[in-house]
Amino acid sequence: MIKIAIIGAGSIVFSGRLISDLIQARHELRGAHVVLMDINRKRLEAVYALATRFAKEWGAHFVFQPTTSRQEALQGADFVINTAFVPGYQKLEAERNIAEKLGYYRGIGDRVSDYYGGIGAYAQLKFSLELAREMENVCPKAWLLQSANPVLEATTLIARETSVRVVGMCHGYAKILDVLKALELPEEEVEYQVAGLNHCIWLTRFRYKGENAYPLLDHWLEAKATAFWSDEKYLFQPQQYQMSPAAFALYKMFGLFPIGDTVRAATPWWFHENLETQKRWFPAGGIDSEIGWTCRLSQNIRQLQRFEQAIRTGLLNFREIFSDEPSREPHIPFVIAVVNNKPARLVLNVPNQDVIHGIPSDVVVEVHCLVQREEIRPEPVEPFPKRLMLYVLIPRWLRMERMLHAFQAGDRMSLVLEIAEDHRTRSLEQAIKVVEELLAQPWNEEAQRHYKNPPWGWDFPTHDDRRTMDFEP
Amino acid sequence: MIKIAIIGAGSIVFSGRLISDLIQARHELRGAHVVLMDINRKRLEAVYALATRFAKEWGAHFVFQPTTSRQEALQGADFVINTAFVPGYQKLEAERNIAEKLGYYRGIGDRVSDYYGGIGAYAQLKFSLELAREMENVCPKAWLLQSANPVLEATTLIARETSVRVVGMCHGYAKILDVLKALELPEEEVEYQVAGLNHCIWLTRFRYKGENAYPLLDHWLEAKATAFWSDEKYLFQPQQYQMSPAAFALYKMFGLFPIGDTVRAATPWWFHENLETQKRWFPAGGIDSEIGWTCRLSQNIRQLQRFEQAIRTGLLNFREIFSDEPSREPHIPFVIAVVNNKPARLVLNVPNQDVIHGIPSDVVVEVHCLVQREEIRPEPVEPFPKRLMLYVLIPRWLRMERMLHAFQAGDRMSLVLEIAEDHRTRSLEQAIKVVEELLAQPWNEEAQRHYKNPPWGWDFPTHDDRRTMDFEP
Repeated sequence: MIKIAIIGAGSIVFSGRLISDLIQARHELRGAHVVLMDINRKRLEAVYALATRFAKEWGAHFVFQPTTSRQEALQGADFVINTAFVPGYQKLEAERNIAEKLGYYRGIGDRVSDYYGGIGAYAQLKFSLELAREMENVCPKAWLLQSANPVLEATTLIARETSVRVVGMCHGYAKILDVLKALELPEEEVEYQVAGLNHCIWLTRFRYKGENAYPLLDHWLEAKATAFWSDEKYLFQPQQYQMSPAAFALYKMFGLFPIGDTVRAATPWWFHENLETQKRWFPAGGIDSEIGWTCRLSQNIRQLQRFEQAIRTGLLNFREIFSDEPSREPHIPFVIAVVNNKPARLVLNVPNQDVIHGIPSDVVVEVHCLVQREEIRPEPVEPFPKRLMLYVLIPRWLRMERMLHAFQAGDRMSLVLEIAEDHRTRSLEQAIKVVEELLAQPWNEEAQRHYKNPPWGWDFPTHDDRRTMDFEP
Repeated sequence: MIKIAIIGAGSIVFSGRLISDLIQARHELRGAHVVLMDINRKRLEAVYALATRFAKEWGAHFVFQPTTSRQEALQGADFVINTAFVPGYQKLEAERNIAEKLGYYRGIGDRVSDYYGGIGAYAQLKFSLELAREMENVCPKAWLLQSANPVLEATTLIARETSVRVVGMCHGYAKILDVLKALELPEEEVEYQVAGLNHCIWLTRFRYKGENAYPLLDHWLEAKATAFWSDEKYLFQPQQYQMSPAAFALYKMFGLFPIGDTVRAATPWWFHENLETQKRWFPAGGIDSEIGWTCRLSQNIRQLQRFEQAIRTGLLNFREIFSDEPSREPHIPFVIAVVNNKPARLVLNVPNQDVIHGIPSDVVVEVHCLVQREEIRPEPVEPFPKRLMLYVLIPRWLRMERMLHAFQAGDRMSLVLEIAEDHRTRSLEQAIKVVEELLAQPWNEEAQRHYKNPPWGWDFPTHDDRRTMDFEP
């Protein structure tokens, strides 16, 4: 009997998808022990209630166990799913407001990952690394499935610094389905491959009935894009960035079509400078504008309310709450492939080992892998277009290294230098100020201590220091 | 008898230094055949006149030969020194003016190297590569000593693309002497090592009487900098950037002291945004301001006039025209070490081969080498501070790769994307405009054809393309 521990299980939307996937896999994983761990008791109870109720309804033989103890969750675990979002959305929004007041529209960072959870991604990186270190002691042979963002930074950090078997997971690749829907291609006749870094993945193979399907994208842009973009079903859905002008601009610039959050995170600064620019490239300003982000949060909250109501009233209907289709989260298929020796082709984040040429071996890349038992075999990837490497992949890799260096060395100057390179920064002082103000917030007390000031301070010598000249020229 | 070919010998200042070094090496290199090649006959004759006259005066047995034929110069050469500056300063200034009008104070690029000679460094890269290819045919065993800028880009290109034995050379490291002078340290009691990429080198070892001499730099900054910076001998010499506040700011930020042009090229954008910022960090605004650059050109022209007058009047005095100290150019010491089996420790630009950890093997790095006969052995270098790698060295390496990709693929979009990342760029359109205007200049006719537009053009799809909405919300 296997044991799966879900850390941060109080995240109802994500846990809902996992439970839905589990119930669909009730035969393959019959009898599994699923520990739901969260420090928020109320949310935990809600998820536990949902899980047991649905399992019963569907005759799924799982042992669900709620706990607030991480140690208890990890004890004897075979799989640990980290989905914790430590700081929470409110603090994220508060930090965004501070940055906006200092001249950074919609906050600092790449919108999806590198600063995820706040300045330096400190809380997320620290939590993820500590969890992995605890696993080294408590369940050293377990798999850590890292879904908590920033996936690129956190998974690379854990792979480098611990002996835990870690795999990063993200459902972003599944936006390929939006492509297929727009092109009206049935999934079963399409073969595709994505590759890159998390939130920076590209359609490296795209075939329909055995033929290269990229011309279908070109044709769609030519013949259908304008009508599609004018349709209200698209226009008022800022989350619909997959088939946006931004995605096609990236495709034109770099030669491969971007998939999922790539469209948000790999677009250069001039796509995101302000609401006006974002409207040029994304429907209704896009998910990263104040418009789109509010829509997203409001939908999340509505979904939460549906869950709560369903639990309160007991009027549960599987199909109403959960999808009866696989969620496309790779977690449960991964567990099945490892446990039941049933090979699966999954999009995973694993150390590169030269699969993507030009990215160091110890950097975690997001690629298709064949998983069977304990073996994860990444698929070969064609070399990326050079321009894509030089202007997108390598800079994203470098940004990851900077974040990890700042975190690991507790190097405040590194945070400042990174923000100084933000295109909106107009002076070093502005970059220092935003870092200082963010670190001064009460919830960043620990980060404030962690990121040390440079030993010499910021008072660089300048020519203003020179004495008044006392000679006659 | 060895043959040395100097390509671009009409550059009187540089050739003057080489001839001066040659004459000081008149015993070691007795009988050498020195071909002075340039397409500018007038300058060539001037240099030839100087060379023969001084050789005679000092009893130096060299055979000087002027020629305008590159093929003739290369025939049978053992060493080929490339010092050609193809476009000339006037075109450089014209391009700078165009860029300034479009919002780029003092032009595009890093001030020293990456755009050296004009947009894409096209003329310099093309000339250097063609010269190397000709050497493959005419004198395949000769050494190519690449002094023509951009040294990093050109030397890497030639090392990767041809079979020629190429070594990049730059006298920038010799600014260490300004450090010793300021600290009042006699050179013979100092041991130092520099390492990095050309125009981005750092004092990786600094010892005085066997002890770490870095504290002397700290002490100088503490106790002497203010007086030094207030002295008119410093204040009005914009070329004196070695001991500037900018150099100490780099040292504070990155942990190693920058040497030579590094102070100009490795300083982030916020050191150079406008004249006012430059004045904060550099004496009289620094050599890269309109003030310093004019001073530099005017001094060059005065030196040229001195040469011309000396040639015209016949009133030549070795000490007045040339220095009787070694110029610190590594060319002649390198030739002696190879030819006479007399080992020499020189600062050279050679493929990395993991001397600097974290930089790919096939990138040319600037390091101390021991040269003896045909062997060039780079000295081991301590790992660089991580922050220096992540914020300076790797970005400079990346910029080199972008320039080479743009050049080799004839990729105009790459030029535009690079300029789009310039901190002064406010829109993609601005970046396109500056590239287009520069390429439209008559002297860039060939580059205009070389850098192809993206196959799809620049008319990215945007949401402005969508039709007017014809529904009632």
